[in-house]
Amino acid sequence: MAAVPITQVRLAAYPKGLPSAATWTITHDPVPSPATGEVRVAMDWISVDPGMRGWITPKRSYMPPVEPGEVMRAFGVGTVVESAFDRLAVGDLVTGFTGVQTEAVLAGRELRRIDPAYGAPQSFLSGLGMTGYTAYFGLLDIGRPEPGQTVVVSAAAGAVGSVVCQIARIRGCRVVAIAGGEAKTRWLREELGVDVAVDYRAGNLGPALDQAAPDGIDVYFDNVGGEILDAVLMRINRHARIAVCGGISQYADMDAVRGPANYLQLVAQSATMQGFTMRDYLRRIPEALMQLLQWTATGQLRFREHVIDGIENFPEALGMLFRGENHGKLLIRVHADAPGDQA
Amino acid sequence: MAAVPITQVRLAAYPKGLPSAATWTITHDPVPSPATGEVRVAMDWISVDPGMRGWITPKRSYMPPVEPGEVMRAFGVGTVVESAFDRLAVGDLVTGFTGVQTEAVLAGRELRRIDPAYGAPQSFLSGLGMTGYTAYFGLLDIGRPEPGQTVVVSAAAGAVGSVVCQIARIRGCRVVAIAGGEAKTRWLREELGVDVAVDYRAGNLGPALDQAAPDGIDVYFDNVGGEILDAVLMRINRHARIAVCGGISQYADMDAVRGPANYLQLVAQSATMQGFTMRDYLRRIPEALMQLLQWTATGQLRFREHVIDGIENFPEALGMLFRGENHGKLLIRVHADAPGDQA
Repeated sequence: MAAVPITQVRLAAYPKGLPSAATWTITHDPVPSPATGEVRVAMDWISVDPGMRGWITPKRSYMPPVEPGEVMRAFGVGTVVESAFDRLAVGDLVTGFTGVQTEAVLAGRELRRIDPAYGAPQSFLSGLGMTGYTAYFGLLDIGRPEPGQTVVVSAAAGAVGSVVCQIARIRGCRVVAIAGGEAKTRWLREELGVDVAVDYRAGNLGPALDQAAPDGIDVYFDNVGGEILDAVLMRINRHARIAVCGGISQYADMDAVRGPANYLQLVAQSATMQGFTMRDYLRRIPEALMQLLQWTATGQLRFREHVIDGIENFPEALGMLFRGENHGKLLIRVHADAPGDQA
Repeated sequence: MAAVPITQVRLAAYPKGLPSAATWTITHDPVPSPATGEVRVAMDWISVDPGMRGWITPKRSYMPPVEPGEVMRAFGVGTVVESAFDRLAVGDLVTGFTGVQTEAVLAGRELRRIDPAYGAPQSFLSGLGMTGYTAYFGLLDIGRPEPGQTVVVSAAAGAVGSVVCQIARIRGCRVVAIAGGEAKTRWLREELGVDVAVDYRAGNLGPALDQAAPDGIDVYFDNVGGEILDAVLMRINRHARIAVCGGISQYADMDAVRGPANYLQLVAQSATMQGFTMRDYLRRIPEALMQLLQWTATGQLRFREHVIDGIENFPEALGMLFRGENHGKLLIRVHADAPGDQA
């Protein structure tokens, strides 16, 4: 393993708008030996997720916010390098809340062992991990699309969105993917095979959606909120389902979120807007993983990863995510020889 | 029957804000004889409903908007005075979309015969009619409260809200009623027996809700939208259900509706916001009616009616509704000897 100095990325202060350099402090604190029940893990991959915006917002949410001074919360994949936990051995690959750090002592029972036979280690942060499960349960359990129905997905070229598009296509839906820029919409059309890809940056979102969804919208998987959510609301069908996964367009100012002005269309169309997080589905992960593995084995489902090298680049990577500059799942490769065939 | 001049209240022009005198034209057009399948009905009672704001908004909704020049849409109760429809006879009491008019020729199969043995005729516009059914299905089907859970109701002294409060209490819930002004909150506490009545006009809605719902909010029956919806969203429990019935606080400017800025709490709490109208439940009306009748028979459920005399006062009555000046179900008594024991 290449020598990487022990590094932690800590929250310096809650950001007002989008996180910036001032949001973070880099430390190089030594890591102790594990006590009983703990393991020392050397991180290989760190997941960079839109949900992180909520974790550094001092507001009531599904998890307590990260406190200033603490290591930033993150999902990661790492290798056990020292174990005082009887169910994990040195060399095991594990995943869980590892934090944005190169190395850490973690509670063994909070980690899940990864079997690399199933996929590249980093794919357990991407399509075979929380990202994939979020897409799977959000679309199928909350969205409940029927074959032939129209499914609209925002941030469709992103980590979760691109998996949602593919599952909707597998389920026989008409898939309308919304993304920013020509490169992303071309990729969605040509590589993921969506029916229509709409570039919201091109303007005229409303007419574009009218054309893309001539029979109205049955299911909307929302990652963005804002004006896209409002445009979709005006076009939902009766009994439509809106699965709210996130609202990235509003993360720049969490104190002045724009609520959906067209929400009374929920009444007009007897429609449902339902939020969810993975904590509702932790017990059903095996079901999702099995299905996602099967689809990847048959080539129906593919994951795109966008890899940034070096944990010190985490602040910049998070900025890319909020500016929509990533293509697919954004990952930090902690060190040059991290296991992973696509790296 | 007293001699009332034949009168129609027609939409003159779509209002920009709340409807005013300029929104309406009064006409006195003669009424023809019914053709086959039709009946001529002399109206006794007209229902004045918040949903009327949507019917005079030229926007996509669950029904086409009333066109300028047309008689205003309304639910009503009337007496058949001439019949060319074999299933209705002269003297029958009927209900349906009668319009805001003293007399009209209507399609017989669009009307429902009322049995006055079950209740006062106007109660079929109130608690035994769409108002009661809306409360019943909205609370029980969309809100799905469990005994002991906290149910918050806005516009709680209104027609639908006051029935929701009583059904929630019958189901063993903690009922928090939100209304405007001391008279309404006192009535809710003393007459309807809600656990807490919050006067939103007194300010400090957030702290008042914290105190009223110390265990958080499981179900919210929303008639108002706006800042009350936002305050509730910040206090919902995990897996909370918000039944959206209307958004009367926003009806003053349908082009600048304030969307719920705190809607991302739906994600944080895995909560659902679901709209509905009675068209989803038309086939289940007998179930609702039977249950509502049973509760009224045992005295567990009461309806309060606020009666305005004379169809020419419809514009003013609608204004009262939007200013929150009604106490209970707002009804127009079309003529002085309209049948109805509470009149």
